Amino acid sequence: MDEIRIGIVGGGYMGKAHAVAYAAVGGIFDTPLRPILEMVCASSPESAERYRKSFGFKRATADWRTLVDDELVDAIVIASPQSTHRAIAEAAFSLGKPVFCEKPLGASLGDSRAMLAAADRSGCVNMVGFNYIRTPASQYARQLIDSGRIGEVTWFRGEHTEDFLADAELPVTWRTDGDANGTMGDLAPHMINAARALIGPITSLIASVETVHSKRPGGTVTNDDQAQMMCRFENGAQGHLFFSRVATGRKMGYAYEIHGTKGAIRFDQEDQNALHLYTMDGPEAERGFRKILTGPAHPDYLPFCQGPGHGTGYQDQIIIEAHDFLRALHEKRNIWPTFAEGMEVNRVVDAALSSSRKRAWVDIADY
Amino acid sequence: MDEIRIGIVGGGYMGKAHAVAYAAVGGIFDTPLRPILEMVCASSPESAERYRKSFGFKRATADWRTLVDDELVDAIVIASPQSTHRAIAEAAFSLGKPVFCEKPLGASLGDSRAMLAAADRSGCVNMVGFNYIRTPASQYARQLIDSGRIGEVTWFRGEHTEDFLADAELPVTWRTDGDANGTMGDLAPHMINAARALIGPITSLIASVETVHSKRPGGTVTNDDQAQMMCRFENGAQGHLFFSRVATGRKMGYAYEIHGTKGAIRFDQEDQNALHLYTMDGPEAERGFRKILTGPAHPDYLPFCQGPGHGTGYQDQIIIEAHDFLRALHEKRNIWPTFAEGMEVNRVVDAALSSSRKRAWVDIADY
Amino acid sequence: MDEIRIGIVGGGYMGKAHAVAYAAVGGIFDTPLRPILEMVCASSPESAERYRKSFGFKRATADWRTLVDDELVDAIVIASPQSTHRAIAEAAFSLGKPVFCEKPLGASLGDSRAMLAAADRSGCVNMVGFNYIRTPASQYARQLIDSGRIGEVTWFRGEHTEDFLADAELPVTWRTDGDANGTMGDLAPHMINAARALIGPITSLIASVETVHSKRPGGTVTNDDQAQMMCRFENGAQGHLFFSRVATGRKMGYAYEIHGTKGAIRFDQEDQNALHLYTMDGPEAERGFRKILTGPAHPDYLPFCQGPGHGTGYQDQIIIEAHDFLRALHEKRNIWPTFAEGMEVNRVVDAALSSSRKRAWVDIADY
Amino acid sequence: MDEIRIGIVGGGYMGKAHAVAYAAVGGIFDTPLRPILEMVCASSPESAERYRKSFGFKRATADWRTLVDDELVDAIVIASPQSTHRAIAEAAFSLGKPVFCEKPLGASLGDSRAMLAAADRSGCVNMVGFNYIRTPASQYARQLIDSGRIGEVTWFRGEHTEDFLADAELPVTWRTDGDANGTMGDLAPHMINAARALIGPITSLIASVETVHSKRPGGTVTNDDQAQMMCRFENGAQGHLFFSRVATGRKMGYAYEIHGTKGAIRFDQEDQNALHLYTMDGPEAERGFRKILTGPAHPDYLPFCQGPGHGTGYQDQIIIEAHDFLRALHEKRNIWPTFAEGMEVNRVVDAALSSSRKRAWVDIADY
Ligand SMILES: NC(=O)C1=CN([C@@H]2O[C@H](COP(=O)(O)OP(=O)(O)OC[C@H]3O[C@@H](n4cnc5c(N)ncnc54)[C@H](O)[C@@H]3O)[C@@H](O)[C@H]2O)C=CC1
Ligand SMILES: NC(=O)C1=CN([C@@H]2O[C@H](COP(=O)(O)OP(=O)(O)OC[C@H]3O[C@@H](n4cnc5c(N)ncnc54)[C@H](O)[C@@H]3O)[C@@H](O)[C@H]2O)C=CC1
Ligand SMILES: NC(=O)C1=CN([C@@H]2O[C@H](COP(=O)(O)OP(=O)(O)OC[C@H]3O[C@@H](n4cnc5c(N)ncnc54)[C@H](O)[C@@H]3O)[C@@H](O)[C@H]2O)C=CC1
Ligand SMILES: NC(=O)C1=CN([C@@H]2O[C@H](COP(=O)(O)OP(=O)(O)OC[C@H]3O[C@@H](n4cnc5c(N)ncnc54)[C@H](O)[C@@H]3O)[C@@H](O)[C@H]2O)C=CC1
Repeated sequence: MDEIRIGIVGGGYMGKAHAVAYAAVGGIFDTPLRPILEMVCASSPESAERYRKSFGFKRATADWRTLVDDELVDAIVIASPQSTHRAIAEAAFSLGKPVFCEKPLGASLGDSRAMLAAADRSGCVNMVGFNYIRTPASQYARQLIDSGRIGEVTWFRGEHTEDFLADAELPVTWRTDGDANGTMGDLAPHMINAARALIGPITSLIASVETVHSKRPGGTVTNDDQAQMMCRFENGAQGHLFFSRVATGRKMGYAYEIHGTKGAIRFDQEDQNALHLYTMDGPEAERGFRKILTGPAHPDYLPFCQGPGHGTGYQDQIIIEAHDFLRALHEKRNIWPTFAEGMEVNRVVDAALSSSRKRAWVDIADY
Repeated sequence: MDEIRIGIVGGGYMGKAHAVAYAAVGGIFDTPLRPILEMVCASSPESAERYRKSFGFKRATADWRTLVDDELVDAIVIASPQSTHRAIAEAAFSLGKPVFCEKPLGASLGDSRAMLAAADRSGCVNMVGFNYIRTPASQYARQLIDSGRIGEVTWFRGEHTEDFLADAELPVTWRTDGDANGTMGDLAPHMINAARALIGPITSLIASVETVHSKRPGGTVTNDDQAQMMCRFENGAQGHLFFSRVATGRKMGYAYEIHGTKGAIRFDQEDQNALHLYTMDGPEAERGFRKILTGPAHPDYLPFCQGPGHGTGYQDQIIIEAHDFLRALHEKRNIWPTFAEGMEVNRVVDAALSSSRKRAWVDIADY
Repeated sequence: MDEIRIGIVGGGYMGKAHAVAYAAVGGIFDTPLRPILEMVCASSPESAERYRKSFGFKRATADWRTLVDDELVDAIVIASPQSTHRAIAEAAFSLGKPVFCEKPLGASLGDSRAMLAAADRSGCVNMVGFNYIRTPASQYARQLIDSGRIGEVTWFRGEHTEDFLADAELPVTWRTDGDANGTMGDLAPHMINAARALIGPITSLIASVETVHSKRPGGTVTNDDQAQMMCRFENGAQGHLFFSRVATGRKMGYAYEIHGTKGAIRFDQEDQNALHLYTMDGPEAERGFRKILTGPAHPDYLPFCQGPGHGTGYQDQIIIEAHDFLRALHEKRNIWPTFAEGMEVNRVVDAALSSSRKRAWVDIADY
Repeated sequence: MDEIRIGIVGGGYMGKAHAVAYAAVGGIFDTPLRPILEMVCASSPESAERYRKSFGFKRATADWRTLVDDELVDAIVIASPQSTHRAIAEAAFSLGKPVFCEKPLGASLGDSRAMLAAADRSGCVNMVGFNYIRTPASQYARQLIDSGRIGEVTWFRGEHTEDFLADAELPVTWRTDGDANGTMGDLAPHMINAARALIGPITSLIASVETVHSKRPGGTVTNDDQAQMMCRFENGAQGHLFFSRVATGRKMGYAYEIHGTKGAIRFDQEDQNALHLYTMDGPEAERGFRKILTGPAHPDYLPFCQGPGHGTGYQDQIIIEAHDFLRALHEKRNIWPTFAEGMEVNRVVDAALSSSRKRAWVDIADY
């Protein structure tokens, strides 16, 4: 059993999730490659040291270059704000080190393109943090569609909706500033990734992006609160995507509905251990959406629990992600979703922002 | 207690529903005006006679002019195909007779405009058959929104989805021919009416209308299978509407989700006796969508049953509709939704078809 | 098309429901026998006259004997309190008139036995008002079980729970007095009937019956608020039944869960248009409870609506019931559930009350 | 930050879950005491060594005495079959070592009593593995009830139902042999613990325990497949509990419904991140069960994720459990549920088995 020494940039929301994932993944998946929490980086020495202690890292630093350059650090996980992703990834690749980067890949499409180019040049393993598509339910949805179980897809509706800024009295923060932190920059990538994974590439779209609460205590909001787009997929299916951080009542509204010529699928991350499947099989009288509870029969569930319906949670998605990254490192080959996927998602985001400004349909190929 | 003699044109799906409604409504609502099933009209003498016997009408005819002209027929219910609506309504109004017309009001916007003008000229009571907005749940949703319970509306998503043509092997019929019978002509009006009732007028939209299965056994499909539109409401809210008759698995998918600054509402006609309400009140820990079962506390429920949660069904909507029409006749004043609403809905349909052809945003004011 | 003149005793909650049902049933089911609302009876001349007008009866009376004896009254519907059922039914049978009687059949097991004997002696058509088992969903559940779709039944759990007396501050009324009006007398019969219809006869049971709020404003409660029983069915299955009128949050909790060796069924009247079916067929990964929306493929749905998922409601159950009664009258043969079923249900109620007093298992055969 | 060296007996289903939990808990909860995976024990040297490598333990043994006696092992986690629990726990306590023991505490009530006595004599920290009561939803349910939010409890219905032996063609195994492995021994303890935690002690009960499939390929089944009991709680509430491993369609049916004089609660582990709460507050028209998604506002959720509705899973329950055990060790005081709770649960199990044999109500005090 080999070891791999992990360096994580960022110890906040996602830095913690990744640190825990690397502590747990070996035992859960019985991985041939075992991660060591080598070093953590945060914006100040104090916070870095706090994270080191709390998450069990060997060392800490307040300078990401120190982490990237460190000889003992074999692989880098980027869990710092989007503005930092590009520089860190480029530095890592230049040293031939593999990188796992949180979504969105870059703070802009330009950043993402540069990051993908750097990854390709280096030949290093690279992966982007689209964790929601890794739940057993969504992995299984992909399998069902790929196997033709619901026929040809004719319609896709996806949303990523939350309500953390629904209250107009919440003050401005860094979240309310800059495209990369708006709904399109922050929430949209997950569901665009899902749409692509489940249905295939988007070829054209028209979007409408807006700021619902443009004034908040403390100042002006400079990025978007909610956004929608109609789109066309390469395979001919039509779709609709909706993103909102002011979706009152929605906590984790990563949800989709898919109509096919032989069946249909529905999923809502708020009940992440269930997938709803309808098929045109059998007598009319017996047809209905069946609520399938995830279990050992579904991808990546069994290592967590032998019992069906016992359920996985948010942290488990990050563990599945860590497992895939370790597999990629062990097998020295890229595993989806790589930076290429991260870049394609950014491209859709860029096209949508542009479309909304123009109030017109745009082709993704033009971005 | 006065009597009113009803003549119904059409004895099919909706003709039957209205005939039954007029037989039942008096007892249910204890109406001051009591309907008599005076005459039914259908396309052949045989079918008209069959409906007469079956539904308990006094007389039958195969010529709608005979019905309209008949001295004993006090009020007309139009439940024949959309292509016939205009002529029948105009004839009735010219004789000063009130008209209830099934949706869509006219087979085209031109027809609807003419029908509205005729209604206005005559001063007769007129009403259009948007039955789904009459369920106790949707009436209550309207009340909640109007009372400010969910604050200002920021988002509306509506759909009317069914799967009666999802099977590509179903042959062409009259349903697969002509705009008025397509998804936009046939299904869209109900949900456009709901959007308008719940949120207010739509001011601009961009639509994408398409035929998923353009070839079917027996020929070519000339109208649309599925359609979507993004829209803006007069009050500033953004919206999305989706219509489909190929929505595999959906049987009666008249459903909406509404986000407001203080709460949210969700409804799905497939469980028509429940309304889901979220409010920002109370401690965070206790917040969640509550599933309210309709009961005597909600509009028009009590006459059907004293017990909450006992439920109303499809036929009951038509009975509520009949009650409203009788009220209008008794009180000699129009009750919403009148032909004006029917025309406005047709206008949105027309704008959407035009927008889809142009692939551009359009203003409703231009139609 | 023949006519049949109906006399209804009672014009309250159920009297109204039956009056409306007989007004609507002919058109809905295109019945060969057409009901005439001949006479209604209520406890005072004023109320009887009010019901007459409101529901459209020809005549009214405050004396049920007048109604029963009337030469023009062909068939009797008993919708008055349980204490009156026996005398009215016996009088009708003695004149050779068919009787439909609301549940519970008799106010006591003795009454029910006498009523069944009178029915049998007369050879008249008789039926008891278990309406909930007539929904398309529950009729379909019966079909599924009878066809072996879920294998041999191993477990049945049923409940009839409502919360109309959950509030301890509600005062005493006639409902809080006398066994026949308690939870066992009033609510239990529906679900005992369902258990028998779906699984078969109950052979033994042990019950626990109690009064949760024994004091209420205005006095003492003399009957039960909630009751449960464990039971054994003739076919070997084990079961549990629960009844409550203090089941906070429950409005129409007529619900059951059935486990079989090949599948399972779940139903809740609060969403009466859905039946949940699980079968052991097909790949493990695809198994789950499917939510079947009732439609034309299910018993007695089609006459109400051609569209699946459009839904039936409480009043429609009573219409289905009226249709079955008319069929029985037309075909001059009994149709389930007859007085025999009503008596068997009362027997289970009696056994349960006795078991609860003894705190011991009892055999139904001993009652 | 201090360290504590953990020895786990068993590396199967639960041994793995605990090993992973101790690897992850420190980072998740930022615990002052940090666990070291010191030694694992399994029935053969080969399996023990395999678990050591897989889960990252320092050492392995096939003899639990070696593990218990080892000087470096500070605390013992028992995750081996119930027949082994007592001897291991007694040995550990005799050395003054704290013990966490999987449910059921002992293989019999006698064992449990002896284990509790040994724990008490030793003064060591002791805990029993009722993990389901630790979900944020069920912890919150407890808080709600304790705070009086739903008034006085009048009814509790609980079940623990799964279908892993629903298929009658599955062969006999060790699971189909011996009371401790039957439904009452294996599944019932979790829900009995929940009933006690949520409502309080059970004082009397009557049970019906049975073997549905007594013959299976390979031989005879000697323990129970399904069992139910009616019970009375110390606070006067009435209850019903049901347990089954042949509950077709049920995967993780740990579910309860609680009626109180002011509200009600519903929970189903198959959707473990939702708690359904009904309260009698506010206008009648707005009342309904609200589906509360667990989030940072609920006990023990926040360390897993900052976002509400993002969800925890099965493994997370074991992590919460590990956290509580570490807290108890750090604070040198017992934290519920201790061996005393484990013994009380066994007592109810014993009383139920006895009651079923006698077919009579029994008092828990007599066991
Ligand atoms: N996949 C998912 O579900 C989620 C992904 N994210 C993504 O994860 C990334 C991090 O977001 P959060 O964890 O929410 O942010 P956070 O604010 O909770 O944590 C950011 C961390 O980065 C560190 N940091 C900031 N600037 C730095 C610098 N120049 N050098 C080194 N460290 C620096 C901070 O000290 C902090 O530890 C973002 O790209 C975000 O989009 C965030 C939340 C959920
Ligand atoms: N509100 C709702 O939920 C629904 C509304 N509709 C609307 O109701 C209307 C009727 O539709 P369906 O009942 O489904 O059609 P249908 O085909 O079931 O019945 C049409 C009836 O009109 C009669 N008819 C046809 N041409 C006629 C003519 N020239 N003169 C006299 N009678 C004529 C036919 O004999 C038949 O009785 C349409 O406008 C449709 O859009 C239909 C279904 C549902
Ligand atoms: N199937 C179901 O879902 C339900 C069945 N029921 C049953 O229906 C029956 C009636 O109950 P409700 O309609 O709720 O009662 P209610 O109190 O609403 O109406 C009772 C009616 O009976 C009349 N009445 C009373 N005593 C009379 C007498 N001696 N002679 C003639 N008329 C008399 C009253 O004037 C009144 O019109 C009961 O047996 C009850 O158990 C009641 C509710 C629901
Ligand atoms: N809390 C929960 O949700 C669950 C609790 N359990 C409980 O966990 C305990 C273990 O059950 P599982 O993990 O399902 O069993 P398992 O069969 O998967 O694993 C048992 C482990 O114990 C070891 N073992 C057996 N005999 C031993 C001995 N004499 N000395 C040392 N090691 C021995 C085996 O080698 C194996 O590693 C049981 O008490 C069971 O009731 C089991 C499943 C779920």
